[in-house]
Order: sequence, then structure tokens, then C-alpha cells
Amino acid sequence: MESREIRLKSGATGLPTAANFETGTVTVAAPGAGEVQVRNRWMSVDPYMRGRMYTERASYIPPFQVGEPLQGHAVGEVVASNDPDFAPGDLVSSMFGWREAFTMSGKALQKLPRLPGVPDQAYLGVLGMPGLTAYAGLLEIGQPKPRDTVFVSGGAGAVGSVVAQIAKVKGCTVVATAGSDAKCDWLRSVGIDHAINYKTGNLLAAVQAAVPGGIDIYFDNVGGEHLEVAIEVARQGARFAECGMISAYNATEPVPGPRNLIMVVGKSLKIQGFIVSNYAHLQPQFMTDMGGWIAAGQIKWEETVEDGIDRAPHAFLGLFSGANTGKMLVRL
Amino acid sequence: MESREIRLKSGATGLPTAANFETGTVTVAAPGAGEVQVRNRWMSVDPYMRGRMYTERASYIPPFQVGEPLQGHAVGEVVASNDPDFAPGDLVSSMFGWREAFTMSGKALQKLPRLPGVPDQAYLGVLGMPGLTAYAGLLEIGQPKPRDTVFVSGGAGAVGSVVAQIAKVKGCTVVATAGSDAKCDWLRSVGIDHAINYKTGNLLAAVQAAVPGGIDIYFDNVGGEHLEVAIEVARQGARFAECGMISAYNATEPVPGPRNLIMVVGKSLKIQGFIVSNYAHLQPQFMTDMGGWIAAGQIKWEETVEDGIDRAPHAFLGLFSGANTGKMLVRL
Repeated sequence: MESREIRLKSGATGLPTAANFETGTVTVAAPGAGEVQVRNRWMSVDPYMRGRMYTERASYIPPFQVGEPLQGHAVGEVVASNDPDFAPGDLVSSMFGWREAFTMSGKALQKLPRLPGVPDQAYLGVLGMPGLTAYAGLLEIGQPKPRDTVFVSGGAGAVGSVVAQIAKVKGCTVVATAGSDAKCDWLRSVGIDHAINYKTGNLLAAVQAAVPGGIDIYFDNVGGEHLEVAIEVARQGARFAECGMISAYNATEPVPGPRNLIMVVGKSLKIQGFIVSNYAHLQPQFMTDMGGWIAAGQIKWEETVEDGIDRAPHAFLGLFSGANTGKMLVRL
Repeated sequence: MESREIRLKSGATGLPTAANFETGTVTVAAPGAGEVQVRNRWMSVDPYMRGRMYTERASYIPPFQVGEPLQGHAVGEVVASNDPDFAPGDLVSSMFGWREAFTMSGKALQKLPRLPGVPDQAYLGVLGMPGLTAYAGLLEIGQPKPRDTVFVSGGAGAVGSVVAQIAKVKGCTVVATAGSDAKCDWLRSVGIDHAINYKTGNLLAAVQAAVPGGIDIYFDNVGGEHLEVAIEVARQGARFAECGMISAYNATEPVPGPRNLIMVVGKSLKIQGFIVSNYAHLQPQFMTDMGGWIAAGQIKWEETVEDGIDRAPHAFLGLFSGANTGKMLVRL
């Protein structure tokens, strides 16, 4: 079986471009003992992958290797199996990412249930890594209580849209930002109290107008001005779940931190960064809770889909211009 | 009884000066029902008081009022009492601060034990608010474990010197900064593993050389470059107790935050601000633990003393040039 794959052609400083990627084709071997051959149906592109394109920089996750296919979450179907735990037609998730097909040890795969009302690609979004990220960061770090006020940046993204809706499930008032009026309309359509287009007008003034009493929780996907605004409007003892700072991912110079960080002392703020793997132990409870909320119509989602592996770099780059509403996906 | 007192003459922007203070004299009334007359013996000046001199700025604690005596911790002796809980000669602490004597309701006073080996003024330092600040911030936020590496800025100050020594009691490796070689010598004399004079050489390089494996806990009294260095050398999951940022207290322009704050995500850092009143419930355990450590010779302290209430502004201003080793006190 032939498989096209997207390889890292060069590390990126500043905003990545299509020139950082190249397409290659390999022959996928038949499965050996304990191995499984998989044809990917959907692959994920996520903001955190940007960090792995700094090929010289140590991080919590190793950089991508030049000349190698990029890694990432994918959902596919078993084609052939020499592992008794998998049979042709099984739906599986993997971390082998930007390729059409592969053969790997069955131990590296996770079998997925086919649930009514749950499309396969939901395991890359609301029921996958972005969903668990939202769930764990909001609940474990944010510790929301009914009537708390929750501020979410990137509120129409794969993670932020789930944070905003879980906060509503928990009885909170939610103010979310997004980069277009259409995204704000979508947020309002799923019951978010206040949606702010951060590209128009003064962000601090808009947040203060929406929630004059301030915020108890900030879920940060953006950093930069959003973080400074959140510190400014934070109530005593507010909790900040630092999930990402996409505004700084492509910076070529060090980005100064918020000018009001000193308020962390007087307001007794907790600013806590996290990565989803810290909370892998929550996976079973997450699947139970999220499955229930989806079935009850309490969590909805949007997708933005590109077709064909050739479009994967385009899909990825679109994350940095806000081309996606909800989860950005590539259908293979 | 006459009492001289130091009043706020004007709010301060930038570095305060002697011109922000003025001295006045009042007659202290004899105690009415339930009241106690106290002659202060020692008064405290502390960095947090700077924030109360921004008379236009809301904070967790109200600003000082122009024309009124400044508030703060003091230790004194009961002169006369109409409260059955207090008798002449009793040692008491209060928050009425910058004055020689006062008459107040006994409910606003705390009676202090006279312990062997514990001078009265220790209740303004190692056994008082600075000691509890160190104890609560390090233990509750830092959660030190044996063999953790703890970084303390302002390590020779009233709070930092106690943090550094409690960390040693808890079995940690400790690296502390101070602003002179003499302060560093003192830190080494009480068993601190690494003392760095931050005014000489490159701070980041010095910390990396002292603790090449990085740090698990940062106790911040300083902010600014120290905080940026701490983020840079933090290990995965490090805890930051944000007690103060004295480097920014007198800034006349907003101070940019650390340029590497984005690392809070990938390193899963927790940066938590606090004020000592959050931990008032720890007071009994603190007195037991600290009393034991002092008796066992595990916690030592230095003082810098100015004599006479007229010297109180000078003592206070000295905090911002590092004039103190250990607790800065005014003997009345």
C-alpha cells in the first residue's frame, strides 16, 4: 500500500509557511507479528504543533525532525492486523499523524467505540485531546463553582469552545472572545453569555462592560493582551488555566509579559500552566462526562475541514489566522 | 500622655522620600471602658507599606490617608487598662503602627508571651507577620519535599531569610540572592547552600552555575529579572510563591512582565500570589513550629535597628536600597 505523507522540510522561525513542508510517498509494509496496518481517515492539526517546528529548542515534547513526517493525532480504520486485539474495520486513534496510512505495533493504537450521533472525527476534537484539555484545565485548575464568572480566550476554537460550554454546564457566567462576528454569533447560539470580537474595539473595555464584577477564572489560549486584560479584571483569588499563548507562537523576539503582573500578589491570583498529558488519568471520567453532555445536547461543536493530505499544511497555517471555527481537521 | 506620630503628608509616585512624611504630636487619652493604653516599644516598617502610599489606587488593603498616622505592626507594653484581659506591663502587638503610644479597645490588641531567648521585637519579625508570610508561602504554595531545590530572592530580608532556613529544615537545597557580599556571607553562615550577590555579574548564569539541575520552588520577593531567571531555570511542575515584587514598587511606568512567561505552559508552572492574611488560620501551627525551630537553633535572624520615631521614615526608605539585613525595625 502506498501512503503519501507530509514531512518537515525545515524548522521555522516566525510565521511558518508552506515552504516548511514537503510531500513524500512511502510504501506501507504488510503487518508483521503484533502489528496493525491502518488507513487514516482524519488527521488533526493543532496550535501546539507550532512549538515542535522550533527544531533547535528543547521543550516538554521533542521537536519534529527535518525530513521526517510530522506527528499528531489521527483517526483511521484497521486494514489488516496481526494483533489479536484489532480486526479489519476497527476504528483506531494514533499519534502518527500527517500520513495516509501506516503499519505499527498494535500497542501504539487505541481502539475507539462507534457511538450513535458521534462522528469518527469527534475523537480528534470534543471527545479527543482538545476536549480533555478543556475539561481538565477548566475543572482541575479553574475549580468552577456555580455563579463564578469564566473568561475564555480563543472561545470559538477547538479547546475554547468546549471550555465555554462546560463552564455553562457548571452554572457559570461565561465571557468568550473570538476573532470574527460569525464566531461570536455561534458562541451566542450555544448559550454563551457574552461573546466579544477582540479584533474590534478595546478589549479591556469590552470585557469590563460584559462582566463589570470581574472574573473568577481565566482559561488562556492566547496570551498577550488577553492575559493582561484578564489580570486587570480578575477578582481576588482568581484561577488562570494557562493552556496556550498562540499570540506569541510565531514571535521572532521575546515577548514582554503582562505589564500588570504585579497584581498577582495583591489579588492572590493563581496562574497555572498545564499540558494535557498531566491529566491522562482523567480520561475515563472525561469520556463518561463528555459523552453524557453530548447526548444531552449540552455540548455542541463546529468543524473546519480541508480535504486531502496535500491540504494539511494549509489547514495548519490557517490556525494562526483564525481560519477555523471549532476544530480544524483534514479529511484523508 | 503625649505621643509623637508619623503621618502621611502626601501620596508618592516613584521612590518615596522623607518629604512624604511629617511628624505630629497628640495627647493620648486615659483608657475608657474596655480600653487599654499602650506605649509602643518597637514598630515595624515593611515593603508592603509602599503600596499603601499610592493614595489613588485600590488594592487588597486600603491606602494610607493623607494627614493620618501610618499604620503597621508594633509591639508595646500596657500602661493602663480598663479591659480585664490586660494588665499594666503586659506585652501586646497591634496594627496602629507609626506612633509612640495610643489608647484603643482591648479587642484590637493581641497579648504576647515572654519566652526565654525570644526578644520582644521578634514578634515583628521571625515570630510575626514576616515569619508567617515565609512559613505559609513556602509550605502551602511551594509544597517543599526533601531534596527539592528552592530559589529565594531577597534572601537576607525579613521574609526571605526565614524562607531559606525553613527550606533547609525541610531538607531542600537552597539558592538565595542578596544585594551585598556581607549579606551573602550571613546566608552561608546559617547553612544556605548557595548565596548569590545579584548586583555583581549575570544573575541567570550564577543561578545556573549554582543549581545546574534547575529549581522546584521559587519564592519571589523581588519580581523583575529575578522572576524571569526563575522561569528560565524552573523544572517541570515548579511552584512559584509570589510574595512581593519590590523591584517594581516604585516604578512610574508599567513594568513589562517576564519575556519568557510562555514557558509557564510547557513547564506546567504554578505561579501563585498570596498575602499573609490568606493564611491566618495557620497562626497556631506556625507559632508551634517556629518556636521549636528557634529553640533548636534551626532558625536564626538578623535585625537592622533605627532609634526613635523620627527615624521611622528613614528606616522605611532604607528598605528600597537594601539598607537592612534581616528585619528592619524602629526602637521607640
